[in-house]
Amino acid sequence: MAKEITSREQDYSQWYNDIVLKSGLADYTAVRGCMVIKPHGFALWEIMRDTLDKMFKDTGHVNAYFPLFIPKSFLSKEAAHVEGFAKECAVVTHYRLMNDPNGGGVVVDPDAKLEEELIVRPTSETIIWSTFKTWIQSYRDLPLLINQWANVVRWEMRTRLFLRTAEFLWQEGHTAHATADEAIAETRQMLDIYANFAENYMAMPVVRGVKSANERFAGAVDTYCIEALMQDGKALQAGTSHFLGQNFAKAFDVKFSDKENKLEYVWATSWGASTRLIGALVMAHSDDDGLVLPPKVAPLQVVIVPIYKGDEQLAMISEKANVLAKELRAMGISVKYDNSEHARPGWKFAEYEMKGVPVRVAIGARDLEKNLVEVARRDTKEKMTVPVEGLSSYIKDLLDDIQVSIYNKAKKFQQDHITKADSWEEFMAILDGKAGFVSAHWDGTGETEEKIKELSKATIRCIPLDNPQEEGTCILTGNPSTQRVLFARAY
Amino acid sequence: MAKEITSREQDYSQWYNDIVLKSGLADYTAVRGCMVIKPHGFALWEIMRDTLDKMFKDTGHVNAYFPLFIPKSFLSKEAAHVEGFAKECAVVTHYRLMNDPNGGGVVVDPDAKLEEELIVRPTSETIIWSTFKTWIQSYRDLPLLINQWANVVRWEMRTRLFLRTAEFLWQEGHTAHATADEAIAETRQMLDIYANFAENYMAMPVVRGVKSANERFAGAVDTYCIEALMQDGKALQAGTSHFLGQNFAKAFDVKFSDKENKLEYVWATSWGASTRLIGALVMAHSDDDGLVLPPKVAPLQVVIVPIYKGDEQLAMISEKANVLAKELRAMGISVKYDNSEHARPGWKFAEYEMKGVPVRVAIGARDLEKNLVEVARRDTKEKMTVPVEGLSSYIKDLLDDIQVSIYNKAKKFQQDHITKADSWEEFMAILDGKAGFVSAHWDGTGETEEKIKELSKATIRCIPLDNPQEEGTCILTGNPSTQRVLFARAY
Ligand SMILES: [Zn+2]
Ligand SMILES: [Zn+2]
Repeated sequence: MAKEITSREQDYSQWYNDIVLKSGLADYTAVRGCMVIKPHGFALWEIMRDTLDKMFKDTGHVNAYFPLFIPKSFLSKEAAHVEGFAKECAVVTHYRLMNDPNGGGVVVDPDAKLEEELIVRPTSETIIWSTFKTWIQSYRDLPLLINQWANVVRWEMRTRLFLRTAEFLWQEGHTAHATADEAIAETRQMLDIYANFAENYMAMPVVRGVKSANERFAGAVDTYCIEALMQDGKALQAGTSHFLGQNFAKAFDVKFSDKENKLEYVWATSWGASTRLIGALVMAHSDDDGLVLPPKVAPLQVVIVPIYKGDEQLAMISEKANVLAKELRAMGISVKYDNSEHARPGWKFAEYEMKGVPVRVAIGARDLEKNLVEVARRDTKEKMTVPVEGLSSYIKDLLDDIQVSIYNKAKKFQQDHITKADSWEEFMAILDGKAGFVSAHWDGTGETEEKIKELSKATIRCIPLDNPQEEGTCILTGNPSTQRVLFARAY
Repeated sequence: MAKEITSREQDYSQWYNDIVLKSGLADYTAVRGCMVIKPHGFALWEIMRDTLDKMFKDTGHVNAYFPLFIPKSFLSKEAAHVEGFAKECAVVTHYRLMNDPNGGGVVVDPDAKLEEELIVRPTSETIIWSTFKTWIQSYRDLPLLINQWANVVRWEMRTRLFLRTAEFLWQEGHTAHATADEAIAETRQMLDIYANFAENYMAMPVVRGVKSANERFAGAVDTYCIEALMQDGKALQAGTSHFLGQNFAKAFDVKFSDKENKLEYVWATSWGASTRLIGALVMAHSDDDGLVLPPKVAPLQVVIVPIYKGDEQLAMISEKANVLAKELRAMGISVKYDNSEHARPGWKFAEYEMKGVPVRVAIGARDLEKNLVEVARRDTKEKMTVPVEGLSSYIKDLLDDIQVSIYNKAKKFQQDHITKADSWEEFMAILDGKAGFVSAHWDGTGETEEKIKELSKATIRCIPLDNPQEEGTCILTGNPSTQRVLFARAY
């Protein structure tokens, strides 16, 4: 009856693809590495986007929109940035097609070659800072708190739906400040907003931390991030916030006159989260029957399914269902009454389970005579028989409970999967066994970090904020270390 | 004191550019033909987008997101479509840069050439219909009612902020239906939604009509449109809705099995509106002091400016201002209390006039003693002395009045600028004189239409819906005609 899903145990990676495809979140397209975000996936993204957008606006940010294209020479202006971003990207070289002189179809018009190639933005620091130069003259123009919702392109060789695609949707914040302290405070504030969103909306616990130098954003002084844990024990970076120092201001010569009329370079941040979050959400909570969505981000929170024989029973059930739907909507809860005749109740149950609808209400004629309905919660699959009286309040409370319950389950999983390792053998045993985060001493050098990555395929996910200082020795080199850091294999 | 704006009389085109730049709607960038939409412009777009989006959803449409890139060969699949769109477009030919072996910077890696070039979407019919093929099997999958908010690129040679840019933002609806009638009804429904939005939100009266064959969308059977009139008497197409027949279904082989299990090609529509609407809004209502925005689309509806000497007066004014702001927000009205010390009241007045804020409330210490404030409306620049008591209700009514009043003014202008012409001399005299729409007989041939365009620079904007049938003779050829059509010079 249900669409076939590979189980997690059988093949975690295939399980993920099955869920994304069969729950209608996304699909492959004819364009290599580019996905289509299907209506159910896009409705999810709209909720995530609108929630984050409100958080950004509540902290004084405004939206703007900058060009899709970046002149090739711009990428070279910041030395570290070009190394990180100028490699795998889509390059526009021509601006016209013409009819193929040798027959059907069209070919690139060789006369329409651009003088300077344009890069489809992989991220927008360069084009934005070239614009900020004309917007910023004085300390009165600061802080400048800009966000952009946009598509970006990175020519990834191996792609996976949502997790790594050539094109993806994201937001990128770009702010300019008069002082380093203010920019750092902004960087930290945005990290907190991402963490709040991940934990309180996506029900996905995260570790907040700072990246090692090797893992920093290309052009950043410091990269902060939130790291989530997937059910297979791999980590996933769910948002980053960068303190850019004066690097981009210097690259694009952006100065402001301070209160003493002295010219200073501007301090910068950038921060981003993307449709990758949808992949994280899928992998954090879903099960072998399909998506499990926390109510706060679910496009549809409640579905009502009638179970009946004949028009008379249906009419009686529909009357109750419509009253319930109306009450729920008045409480701000999204609800659908699925009285379609094309499918049987069992098929509908499986379909809404697949799509991750948090609460299902089944209304049967016989139950209704006793003023009862059946309520099922998606997360635990528990079924309850509930009186019609007070049903909408019951469902409202249940949705709150599901939200908390999904979070608590994920939190317990996370806590069970942060493991200390004090030797290389322990370190590898954990990675190859229960996986998750491994908290271990590291001598602080990029060389050792690189070596560990080669040997174990694990990277330093972050140095947690307020990390306790502790004497120890590096698991690889035995050199002295002052703190543990979190390693994991990652998406 | 105010920033210098060229007057409409002096140079209409420069006036438009001045307003867009100086009110902070948009700016030029380092990328040829691409603009940056600045925060004030983007806030306006967000309101327009969200309003339209709600209308689309209320009529059963859902959002999705399709790839930015289109394989070159896809454009050729629909014969008329390729003629219309394959010419001026951005072509991605490579997917990697490399360090320049001869020195600084990066160059295109010649080894990273795509097998098939990718086109940055100028519109998405082809990529979407290639996807619909996998989504549609049976009549149960229909209708499919999809919308996408996206950026698109058309390599225009002469660009103007908002009106014609290489990259712009828009929405494109793409729907699939089981019958021609249903698709035509959808096409008309979406035209009505655009007209409703233009008239009741943008306060911009429009003519609804159908395009002549020459002016049809490339690949459409019929193109419906709404046409607005700008203050210089030129027309501007503000939204189009296309009945595509089975053209794209045939090009991409999209069939469905009907209730009798017979395979049929699917019927299609597409419809779009873009950031061009912002250009239309600017040109429809603004004056020589800046933007004039209808309250329903204004990002900021009310600004409160204190007029004071010393902290004591400011404290007293602020108390009243904060109460008023709170009351207005409770009514769903957006309001800003600008107590910044950086600028004098006169400078603020000019700045908010420039930005098109519909209502300004000036609170002065002396007035306040008499429980009075000064209220100014942006559209007529009228100033009223109003009692503090009942002020928020007064402002709410005033906003409604401004909305209607801006519409009525534009409606009167439109009606005064639809003029009948019954000879070529009359036709040219109107175009070169008062301009606007010219209602004239035309013999119905594409050749004549083309000739008229060459001679007069005017095009057939549309054949209005429910156009009265009337015997007459073509203004150019003298051949018989059965109806008048609307000509105009256009943006
Ligand atoms: Zn991290
Ligand atoms: Zn028209």
